[in-house]
Amino acid sequence: MRGSTKIRDVAKAAGVAVGTVSRVLNGHPTVTEPIRRKVQAAIDAMGYERDTIAQSMRGGATRLVACAIRDFDIPRFATFIKEAEHLLREQGYTLLLSSTTNRPEVELDLLRAFARRKVDGVMMTISDEAHPGVLEALAAAPMPVLLIDRDRIDTADRVTADHSAGAARATRHLLALGHRRIALLVGDTKAFPARSRVQGFAEAFDAAGLAPDPALLRDRVLTAEDTFRETMALMRLTPPPTAIFVATMDLLEGSLRALRALGCRVGEDVSLIAGSDSDLAELYTPPVTAVAWDLAEMGRHAATMLLERMRGQAPAGFRCLKLPTRLVIRESCRPPGSAVPQ
Amino acid sequence: MRGSTKIRDVAKAAGVAVGTVSRVLNGHPTVTEPIRRKVQAAIDAMGYERDTIAQSMRGGATRLVACAIRDFDIPRFATFIKEAEHLLREQGYTLLLSSTTNRPEVELDLLRAFARRKVDGVMMTISDEAHPGVLEALAAAPMPVLLIDRDRIDTADRVTADHSAGAARATRHLLALGHRRIALLVGDTKAFPARSRVQGFAEAFDAAGLAPDPALLRDRVLTAEDTFRETMALMRLTPPPTAIFVATMDLLEGSLRALRALGCRVGEDVSLIAGSDSDLAELYTPPVTAVAWDLAEMGRHAATMLLERMRGQAPAGFRCLKLPTRLVIRESCRPPGSAVPQ
Repeated sequence: MRGSTKIRDVAKAAGVAVGTVSRVLNGHPTVTEPIRRKVQAAIDAMGYERDTIAQSMRGGATRLVACAIRDFDIPRFATFIKEAEHLLREQGYTLLLSSTTNRPEVELDLLRAFARRKVDGVMMTISDEAHPGVLEALAAAPMPVLLIDRDRIDTADRVTADHSAGAARATRHLLALGHRRIALLVGDTKAFPARSRVQGFAEAFDAAGLAPDPALLRDRVLTAEDTFRETMALMRLTPPPTAIFVATMDLLEGSLRALRALGCRVGEDVSLIAGSDSDLAELYTPPVTAVAWDLAEMGRHAATMLLERMRGQAPAGFRCLKLPTRLVIRESCRPPGSAVPQ
Repeated sequence: MRGSTKIRDVAKAAGVAVGTVSRVLNGHPTVTEPIRRKVQAAIDAMGYERDTIAQSMRGGATRLVACAIRDFDIPRFATFIKEAEHLLREQGYTLLLSSTTNRPEVELDLLRAFARRKVDGVMMTISDEAHPGVLEALAAAPMPVLLIDRDRIDTADRVTADHSAGAARATRHLLALGHRRIALLVGDTKAFPARSRVQGFAEAFDAAGLAPDPALLRDRVLTAEDTFRETMALMRLTPPPTAIFVATMDLLEGSLRALRALGCRVGEDVSLIAGSDSDLAELYTPPVTAVAWDLAEMGRHAATMLLERMRGQAPAGFRCLKLPTRLVIRESCRPPGSAVPQ
């Protein structure tokens, strides 16, 4: 086999065992610096690429990383997946995606199935960061697990975005325009994103010496049907909110449909901010202001952290990376009462 | 275990072996009709649900179905996946999604990995329906494989949509409005959808006694960057096309960005039809006419056909199901020369 020949050539040229070359390529902690340099010099001298050697080592056996997220239907999340997959594939790993349907029992089933099928690593979301069974399963998992956008569990590496700061920024933007009756739609506060969005929203009100109307806070909003229904219900209140912050991942569509059905003009009759950016937010008329963060970067970090962990190159303690969010201001927010009578 | 007790109870009540109950539940072809009726009567008499018994039989072992598609980033396709997953999960199967990046070598790697990990069944797209290596791997696969939206390979069950009829309908709509310079953007004609869209487009021109301008046909359009670039290039031709048929899955976004960048008004300066429906097509201003088909139904049929095959309940020959497409007429198409001078 071409692969084994390559690694044997390198071992011979460097005057070390094949296993030592393998340990160098895997960044094994027991390899001393002089040995590492000797092997690297042999690889360089032979004109090989480090990755090609590493791949040949595996002799064609595909390694698997499983990724489990709440719902397949989160287009924006594809950016994360694609970037993570790209990085993992370069290193000889295949990424398999599955959906948890946001239920702990499915999360537990999947963790068991992944362990039994000996997948090499897992990236996942979990629906409830305080669920005892899931916590136990994560701590006992035989393979490294990286948590996506969850921050509480310290038995795993985590990548997150600063949703709290994003929500605070969005809320301050609306407050500065004069809005007081601001509705907030969020997902399940048992998980980090919704919990921190509620927190950022409350903090912005608090910093302004104001208090939000609790009747305008709607949580457990998880599908476009939910945003549709809650937006309908909110706009039928007397008085209705003057602004809606759809602080979810990719569910803006439901609110837009509801406002359209009610004949409410975005920006004129009601201001609108999306909790995550999307093609729809950008290309809608008027374009919709949105909280944004770099999902490609998040995917890159997730893959890198998991690769380090799978290869035993990660530090002993578990890491939590928080990426910044920003507010992309477009044309969907105006001072309340901007409606021009038609 | 509760599970095994149940199945033993049923076997005892029916006066048959436990294995016979199992074969009945799996729809094994060697089970005679009288035996099948006897076991079913016992299940009914004991007030059990057939699915509960079937599940208990598996003793908690998760069965896996792998699904491999071109790209994770096809939001509309999530409808297919979710529906298939729902049906499979009810039957005790977990669906794992992976991406082929539309390359035969990745398709081959995945087929090998799925076989080695003993997944129970596979649904996939393939990039080239005439690739000898892939054809061989499909014919030799140890597990049932169902092909998604591919029609040529008769060693597997297939679910497809009638893209040819959809493209013909879209083209006739534009021809009837008076368009002659109609641009067509399609994917890779090595696979069924693009091939049949080109065919439907040509047939509609032919039936009208007209011929399309070959300079306006752009294939291998696979990403939103491709639709952006090709739309830019087309609109810079002298004269530019009066209509663009973006006959791809979910890549409308790139064309809309290009037209916006060029200051071309959809419906006025150029008519536009999307090859697949989307929230963006529906909610854009003006709403975009689109070819549509029922992806949930497609997912249901795919899961059902694969389940039958995995359980040995399918007919000997391989099936090809073709679902109808339709044209959803919105406001993005007008007769050429409709532009109102600004």
